[in-house]
Amino acid sequence: MGMVGGGSDAFIGAIHRLAALMDNQIELVCGCFSVNPEVSLSSGQSYFLPENRIYNTYQEMFESEAQLPEGERMDFVTIVTPNFVHFDPAMMALNSGFHVVIDKPITFTLDEALQLQKKLEETGLTLALTHTYSGYPAVKDAKARVARGELGKIRRIYVEYPQGWLASKLEDTGNQQASWRTDPKRSGKAGCMGDIGTHAHHLAEYISGLKVTELCAELNVFVPGRLLDDDGAAFLRFDNGARGVLVATQVAAGEENALKIRMYGEKGGLEWSQMESNTLWLKWHDRPTEMVRVGTGQMGDIAQHNTRTPGGHPEGYLEAFANIYRNFSLTVRAKMNGEQPTEAMLDFPGIEDGIRGMQFIDTVVEAGYNDSVKWVKFVD
Amino acid sequence: MGMVGGGSDAFIGAIHRLAALMDNQIELVCGCFSVNPEVSLSSGQSYFLPENRIYNTYQEMFESEAQLPEGERMDFVTIVTPNFVHFDPAMMALNSGFHVVIDKPITFTLDEALQLQKKLEETGLTLALTHTYSGYPAVKDAKARVARGELGKIRRIYVEYPQGWLASKLEDTGNQQASWRTDPKRSGKAGCMGDIGTHAHHLAEYISGLKVTELCAELNVFVPGRLLDDDGAAFLRFDNGARGVLVATQVAAGEENALKIRMYGEKGGLEWSQMESNTLWLKWHDRPTEMVRVGTGQMGDIAQHNTRTPGGHPEGYLEAFANIYRNFSLTVRAKMNGEQPTEAMLDFPGIEDGIRGMQFIDTVVEAGYNDSVKWVKFVD
Amino acid sequence: MGMVGGGSDAFIGAIHRLAALMDNQIELVCGCFSVNPEVSLSSGQSYFLPENRIYNTYQEMFESEAQLPEGERMDFVTIVTPNFVHFDPAMMALNSGFHVVIDKPITFTLDEALQLQKKLEETGLTLALTHTYSGYPAVKDAKARVARGELGKIRRIYVEYPQGWLASKLEDTGNQQASWRTDPKRSGKAGCMGDIGTHAHHLAEYISGLKVTELCAELNVFVPGRLLDDDGAAFLRFDNGARGVLVATQVAAGEENALKIRMYGEKGGLEWSQMESNTLWLKWHDRPTEMVRVGTGQMGDIAQHNTRTPGGHPEGYLEAFANIYRNFSLTVRAKMNGEQPTEAMLDFPGIEDGIRGMQFIDTVVEAGYNDSVKWVKFVD
Amino acid sequence: MGMVGGGSDAFIGAIHRLAALMDNQIELVCGCFSVNPEVSLSSGQSYFLPENRIYNTYQEMFESEAQLPEGERMDFVTIVTPNFVHFDPAMMALNSGFHVVIDKPITFTLDEALQLQKKLEETGLTLALTHTYSGYPAVKDAKARVARGELGKIRRIYVEYPQGWLASKLEDTGNQQASWRTDPKRSGKAGCMGDIGTHAHHLAEYISGLKVTELCAELNVFVPGRLLDDDGAAFLRFDNGARGVLVATQVAAGEENALKIRMYGEKGGLEWSQMESNTLWLKWHDRPTEMVRVGTGQMGDIAQHNTRTPGGHPEGYLEAFANIYRNFSLTVRAKMNGEQPTEAMLDFPGIEDGIRGMQFIDTVVEAGYNDSVKWVKFVD
Repeated sequence: MGMVGGGSDAFIGAIHRLAALMDNQIELVCGCFSVNPEVSLSSGQSYFLPENRIYNTYQEMFESEAQLPEGERMDFVTIVTPNFVHFDPAMMALNSGFHVVIDKPITFTLDEALQLQKKLEETGLTLALTHTYSGYPAVKDAKARVARGELGKIRRIYVEYPQGWLASKLEDTGNQQASWRTDPKRSGKAGCMGDIGTHAHHLAEYISGLKVTELCAELNVFVPGRLLDDDGAAFLRFDNGARGVLVATQVAAGEENALKIRMYGEKGGLEWSQMESNTLWLKWHDRPTEMVRVGTGQMGDIAQHNTRTPGGHPEGYLEAFANIYRNFSLTVRAKMNGEQPTEAMLDFPGIEDGIRGMQFIDTVVEAGYNDSVKWVKFVD
Repeated sequence: MGMVGGGSDAFIGAIHRLAALMDNQIELVCGCFSVNPEVSLSSGQSYFLPENRIYNTYQEMFESEAQLPEGERMDFVTIVTPNFVHFDPAMMALNSGFHVVIDKPITFTLDEALQLQKKLEETGLTLALTHTYSGYPAVKDAKARVARGELGKIRRIYVEYPQGWLASKLEDTGNQQASWRTDPKRSGKAGCMGDIGTHAHHLAEYISGLKVTELCAELNVFVPGRLLDDDGAAFLRFDNGARGVLVATQVAAGEENALKIRMYGEKGGLEWSQMESNTLWLKWHDRPTEMVRVGTGQMGDIAQHNTRTPGGHPEGYLEAFANIYRNFSLTVRAKMNGEQPTEAMLDFPGIEDGIRGMQFIDTVVEAGYNDSVKWVKFVD
Repeated sequence: MGMVGGGSDAFIGAIHRLAALMDNQIELVCGCFSVNPEVSLSSGQSYFLPENRIYNTYQEMFESEAQLPEGERMDFVTIVTPNFVHFDPAMMALNSGFHVVIDKPITFTLDEALQLQKKLEETGLTLALTHTYSGYPAVKDAKARVARGELGKIRRIYVEYPQGWLASKLEDTGNQQASWRTDPKRSGKAGCMGDIGTHAHHLAEYISGLKVTELCAELNVFVPGRLLDDDGAAFLRFDNGARGVLVATQVAAGEENALKIRMYGEKGGLEWSQMESNTLWLKWHDRPTEMVRVGTGQMGDIAQHNTRTPGGHPEGYLEAFANIYRNFSLTVRAKMNGEQPTEAMLDFPGIEDGIRGMQFIDTVVEAGYNDSVKWVKFVD
Repeated sequence: MGMVGGGSDAFIGAIHRLAALMDNQIELVCGCFSVNPEVSLSSGQSYFLPENRIYNTYQEMFESEAQLPEGERMDFVTIVTPNFVHFDPAMMALNSGFHVVIDKPITFTLDEALQLQKKLEETGLTLALTHTYSGYPAVKDAKARVARGELGKIRRIYVEYPQGWLASKLEDTGNQQASWRTDPKRSGKAGCMGDIGTHAHHLAEYISGLKVTELCAELNVFVPGRLLDDDGAAFLRFDNGARGVLVATQVAAGEENALKIRMYGEKGGLEWSQMESNTLWLKWHDRPTEMVRVGTGQMGDIAQHNTRTPGGHPEGYLEAFANIYRNFSLTVRAKMNGEQPTEAMLDFPGIEDGIRGMQFIDTVVEAGYNDSVKWVKFVD
């Protein structure tokens, strides 16, 4: 694995490394860790890389690595830069023959995402998008149960993602995370909805197996002087007739990262909260609520494949993240070996999820500031 | 206290009696408990009433009671009939000089509610509306804290009321509760929104001290053949600029009565769940979440006034209900004695809350089925 | 119902009145509410009693009431005085032909409890002991499930009752509750173990249907200057071979009234917490934990008989208390009518439970301060 | 890092690898993964090791590695074999100049642990004992708060560790984990108490900073035919006068891994549950309970040092495990560099904790089956 971004001063890069390395299936072999060459160098050294594999630019990295013999050069690259530096390195990586792992939202614009899709089709390479929350075993078990029809036809979906860290103007204090996320030039046309609303939207579609066809939204800017939405809500209409409510906010003072989804069908419902990620609640119209737990025999094969510890030994965010890397690397390895990846291996977000996310951003922004049009068709 | 409705075959009547009698301040002295005179008689007897105070019609009751000497006749009447039999007995009670306790929604139409308001002004009598959830001590403490500015200016309100009991077509099985609530002739123009959406709306306004000025809504009928909404959601705009999301459903299979409210201001948030009613969560932007508990010294005077047991001895729905009766009866008694009721005594829902509720129903129904108009002004 | 104790300055008397009156089956007709005649008079007046039914002494009350015609005189008396004033009024009440409701511990000494038992047998009268926690519907459902063998043979019982209100020397501040409970002359030989340890012991035997045969204990006095135990723990051995751990403390600073019981058999376990009293958790060796809820169809007949509201409308401490009064009054009424009370009616704690409680106190005190004897047989 | 045990058929070895590799500070360079050379070889290959670093015996590994040049040879060895194969490889590793990471209980007998202590003193090498639960950031914050006196003098400690996986005779089904743990020849003189009671004991001493001086215990064998305790409980007396109750069981059918500790001082209490590991509850005698959360600014420096993600991104068991490896490796590296490790680096369990654990086992077993001696001094 090579890395673009993720210097020692970055947050999400460290998460990616932890997630990638945990399972002893992936090795960090090179990187361009910062636009600042000194930071890149010192970062790479602290990751125990030889100096000749620490690059000043990603262009240089792709060129150099491509010339290394197979088995020595990196197999794939992870791109962990802010949104506006996603497309160029991703496209160049694909053009250089490298598989790609990339953070969401996949690109700055929908058009860029569509270009990546085309390139992936041309090259046959693989792309993983780190919609982390779909990496949780309980989420995968929820998806499997809905698909099996345990809840009956889905009618109602509530998905919410309240955070509180932007309740005050944190971007004015030098906080790097807040700074780029609230800046339209680096984040894109959406703030809160791009950052976390996309996660909520993805989770709803992932578990339900349904697609949003139109939505009604209101986006808000609560903190004075901010240029992008820091809050919003949407009504969702799904392709089977189900209805959804999506809530995302970054000004819910006192909330951490409280992503939660509930889904109700004709026979029962389910509930999952990211902050208590090892429990899947099953609610039934005609019998007691069940508490289904990760790591026990109560979950199915796919969940089990994505679990590392026995019941009662909590797994968390990093393991969910690692599941994306593990399944991606198993898929890449299978393809390299000329084998067909299994369904379990292929269960990680990819280019289609990235495009859906960009479409969601376009749609929710179009709907969210328009007081006279109620329903906006999901951009296709 | 006299009673209209509440025969031994009714649910909510029993609740009203429990709530009224618990504190040994109110005595059941007469009633017309059913449209069926036999049921009325046998019910009254089972409540230990003498036969001459068990009436066949409420008209008869008001006439007879009005002729009894003061001190012997009932002081007030409780009306616990389905929605469409609210207005007539309430108006006649007021015309006969009796105070009134009535269930929500207050009347069948907004116009009727306005007529009651006028009559109350003319007569100086008192009306209590049993929006039960505002009777909980933790809710009252939440209101007091918001009013004191502990959370800062309120920005965001989420209120949700999921139930699951109407996930199947219960009204076809002979269930009386389901039957009238899903019947437009007895329930009014709204189903779920009238039955429980009004509670959610009331709770949001009660705690926040704010008023909804306009809303955007979607109402749904999920169970085939049903004539009224069994589900819905609304975006709310409040008079201080705050934004709200209100969710109410009766088809969330597996949910009981999961009313919950969250409210976030500039400095912090609060959360209260009816099913864990003795805890008020306070969330802070800059320090740990606090778990404030009913019955301890952690809540203020108004909450304490509405609490009967020390911390850790859970109070519940019946005690919340009883708080409305107790404050109503303290107010009526103070007025009878020519005294000014205290703020704590006056803290029960009344005609204004009833009118807001009817306005909410009118507005949410107007907005909820209209795909082309996004925002509807709150009916005034 | 008549009352001994429970003046307007007392805590538990108010609870008893709430619990007794709630169901409109019991009327307060007389009382001697305080050793102070003025307090007794003013209390009785505030409860709307005529002056001739407000007595200065309980002796006077029993004599006067016994001379009133049947139908007018009280049917039973409730004794809500501190422990050292339990036996005399109870015995006199029985001698005067009145049924008795009494708070736990039933008497000051085991011998007194045995005398009451003998008197009850002689007179055929009925006595209810307000071990409140066995009045909760979820507790009754737990008992029924264990009896049906759902958990298999019981092996392990953990029961704990942590409170924190005596973590500091509250009795020195004039607090009446703390004052008599920490005074051996008024409370008896045990402090914490008599006050709340007895509740824990009762709950364990009630739900399991087992009896403690011997125990090993340690009692502690943590607050300097206190004369009775304010903390303790015991290992319990039950008559089927099951083992238990009982914990009771009043110095767990920050705890309210956190009574909790867990019980494990060969096939599964159960858990119930008083502060979340409407949920019974069922844990299974081979399938997901179930959350069984009061007021839904998920509980059995006995639980349903002791429930007043539908699922999701929380009932609490007062309703549990009221269940004891209701079942007691149904039993008394059935007996008066020459009918056999049903099993559900008879399900309230009585003299045998009172005797077990006194035996528990004797045994745990004997064991609790003895560092050289490990196991002490349960006093019989 | 080299490894003894941990073949691809073992559970805890995989956990150790995940924990060690996650932070990109430790590399697996060699191992003897099984007593079965074929399993060792195939395991090592699956971990991407060259064949010449995969050994058939640990003796061979220590000899060969010791001859490799510094920088190439392993720096330390991890021993993840069953209890009875702890001492020999550990002693040989130390004699060969390698630092050691080892699972608990540290050895088969107390005497062996004392020999290791002597050897460590002689060699100046470092040993880490994977008492995982002390690796959780919330546990470290709890320890810091107690040390700062936030709770006042500690009076009461409750620590409990219920599991249910051995509620039936799992060892008869071929389950490897159950098999060695219930076998005195491989597990030692204690079953449940050695396996999980030691964790509970360690956690109590770690957080409180206190030492057990004597205990009273009862050990039980519930599943017929089992040779070692599968359940037990102990009263603990601590060196400051505090009292404790320790509960450990493996027959609590339906429980997963529910380690939980509560501790009460004169001013307040704390509570931590392993299965909700990111929350530390602080309970106060005079103000609301606080929910202190990992990853927020609410915890101190030591907790922060042991945290990888921001608040609301749950960390779990593997991260707690990794904290032991990280602090151990930071300590070893500092020592190698001639630097003094910081307090935060040194905060991992070592030989003293191992000895305390063996003493606990000896004491609790001596006490646990003796019905005539109540208190047994902690073996020193």
